[in-house]
Amino acid sequence: MHTLKVALGARAYPIHIGHGLLERPDLILPHLRTRKVAVVTNDVVGPLYLERLCAGLRREKVEIVSLLLPDGEAHKEWGTLNRIFDMLLRERCERATTLIALGGGVVGDMGGFAAASYQRGIAFIQVPTTLLAQVDSSVGGKTAINHPLGKNMIGAFHQPRLVLADTATLATLPAREFSAGLAEIIKYGLIRDAGFFAWLEQHIDALRALEPGALAWAIERSCHLKADIVAADETEQGERALLNLGHTFGHAIETGLGYGQWLHGEGVAAGTMMAAELSRRLGWLGDEEVARIERLFERAGLPVRGPALGVPRYLALMAHDKKVEAGKLRFVLLRGLGRAVVTADVDIAAVGAAIEARCVAEGGT
Amino acid sequence: MHTLKVALGARAYPIHIGHGLLERPDLILPHLRTRKVAVVTNDVVGPLYLERLCAGLRREKVEIVSLLLPDGEAHKEWGTLNRIFDMLLRERCERATTLIALGGGVVGDMGGFAAASYQRGIAFIQVPTTLLAQVDSSVGGKTAINHPLGKNMIGAFHQPRLVLADTATLATLPAREFSAGLAEIIKYGLIRDAGFFAWLEQHIDALRALEPGALAWAIERSCHLKADIVAADETEQGERALLNLGHTFGHAIETGLGYGQWLHGEGVAAGTMMAAELSRRLGWLGDEEVARIERLFERAGLPVRGPALGVPRYLALMAHDKKVEAGKLRFVLLRGLGRAVVTADVDIAAVGAAIEARCVAEGGT
Repeated sequence: MHTLKVALGARAYPIHIGHGLLERPDLILPHLRTRKVAVVTNDVVGPLYLERLCAGLRREKVEIVSLLLPDGEAHKEWGTLNRIFDMLLRERCERATTLIALGGGVVGDMGGFAAASYQRGIAFIQVPTTLLAQVDSSVGGKTAINHPLGKNMIGAFHQPRLVLADTATLATLPAREFSAGLAEIIKYGLIRDAGFFAWLEQHIDALRALEPGALAWAIERSCHLKADIVAADETEQGERALLNLGHTFGHAIETGLGYGQWLHGEGVAAGTMMAAELSRRLGWLGDEEVARIERLFERAGLPVRGPALGVPRYLALMAHDKKVEAGKLRFVLLRGLGRAVVTADVDIAAVGAAIEARCVAEGGT
Repeated sequence: MHTLKVALGARAYPIHIGHGLLERPDLILPHLRTRKVAVVTNDVVGPLYLERLCAGLRREKVEIVSLLLPDGEAHKEWGTLNRIFDMLLRERCERATTLIALGGGVVGDMGGFAAASYQRGIAFIQVPTTLLAQVDSSVGGKTAINHPLGKNMIGAFHQPRLVLADTATLATLPAREFSAGLAEIIKYGLIRDAGFFAWLEQHIDALRALEPGALAWAIERSCHLKADIVAADETEQGERALLNLGHTFGHAIETGLGYGQWLHGEGVAAGTMMAAELSRRLGWLGDEEVARIERLFERAGLPVRGPALGVPRYLALMAHDKKVEAGKLRFVLLRGLGRAVVTADVDIAAVGAAIEARCVAEGGT
């Protein structure tokens, strides 16, 4: 088991990473204020892992109430959130009750926001069961629901008491979602850690084969890098923007195709290739480095070209991104592997050329 | 103008108290991050005071969007809260926008929770227009909405950047609501400050005549006392319970009659008389002190006897109070004027006798 201590906000909390941690109630018990927990999960993850998590806790005389939410981003809204509040109140959960979110990013975001607002805040433990949630939602304390007029518009910063990332749960994750998680992992290497990027090149096959040691290290290193970046900029003014490498292009792809067509990680991979191409055109990145990035994404099972939306449509979609400030498009680009920078000073013609170069040809596939 | 600095949580903020402060945009401007504010008010307060607040801000080139919510506790729920989010999104309010809540406790609670959760937290200014909100909601950072299964069950701690208590707005407050606010003011004196209690005895008529100097001092002193108590116990474990003087009895009255029959402050006044009577029976308070409390409540226009619900019903209602811990009723009692204490060690027969002594006789009025 790997353990990483995250010190953000007022409290520090551990992220335990390893194979079979769902069956380790001893890791959870020290973080409970009373022996009562409310587990929130969904109707895909629940049938697979809820009992595995609960059996051990029950043996330790922990009273458990639980709720299965419908799976999917479409349900990340008030109506579903309110079902959590209904359950907490019906089951007479008090301020000392701990809420455990068992599932992917949607369950974590909603469970976390429910914990942040129930009786003005109760303790929260995250048990992420997707690779993306393990490397992304574990650090930063962001919780939210969507509003019809915008994603993640209503939420809170609420740090967990504990994150338990059981790599055994990845065995049931669809391959496409696993690859989407790898996109974020590769991103962390590109932003800050060339050595980690090189390690990923050597271990990408082991990761895809779910080799526990490799998985645990990749998750730990990713969480560590994210924690460093977030700690340097908790209020999201500067440094934290680096985490958006590939995201401005990627969001354009996701929105342009309609949400749900490409997974977020897939958009990030193709978007990162556009950012790399733009960096190359600015003379910041060599041909060989761009080729290494492309090769790693491909081996991770990710797309390395965006869909053929046409350059004008890309630019229009990017102009609507929420990261636009004072009308200026800001880009996260690479000044080398492991060295991301934020810049608002990019010639729009170069941006268009980079998109063009990294798109599937119109009419192509 | 009186100014009180409250240092709770990470930030300190000022409470300005005085006559005509709505027309002082200079007090608001230093607290805005950008010149855009969203004002949330209700359909009673809005027509009276919204323009008075906005005119000055508009002269200072502040862009204002506003929303009138329906008045009343019944609307303190998700559907109404969501109308605030709709407005904020429709009007493209950003993280740097400041939300101003103009109104009583309901508007403050909902506006505060909206500010706490919109984009995970935006700045919040409170402009309370009821005496109760000026002395109670101004300090403590509590925001919330109700849930069908419980009051104030969903919310956040979110400190304002500024509180502007304009005593001129009290001119339009119904007399009964003004008296209910006085109940809380008297409560602060009883809990912690015998000198303030004596001052109130001398100035109760000036307060009811809305004499600005007296009002400003009563509000400042109340906020000060509340801030002291809250600061000593931000997480509500011990000291803060003192603020519930009269509330265990008072909630029984409110619930027993059906919510909305008695105002909260009215229940607190009659409930405080029961607590005083119980304290007297324990030998903690003299006859003369009890008489002084009764006299002050009467002069403030408040009830000093509870309704004739019968002792068994009172006790049953009190047993359901959320302040019950491990099955033990906890009481806030008085060991003298200005000296409240929490105790769980009270003989139930004495409690019944105190209620009996402080109820309207059955069949009486």
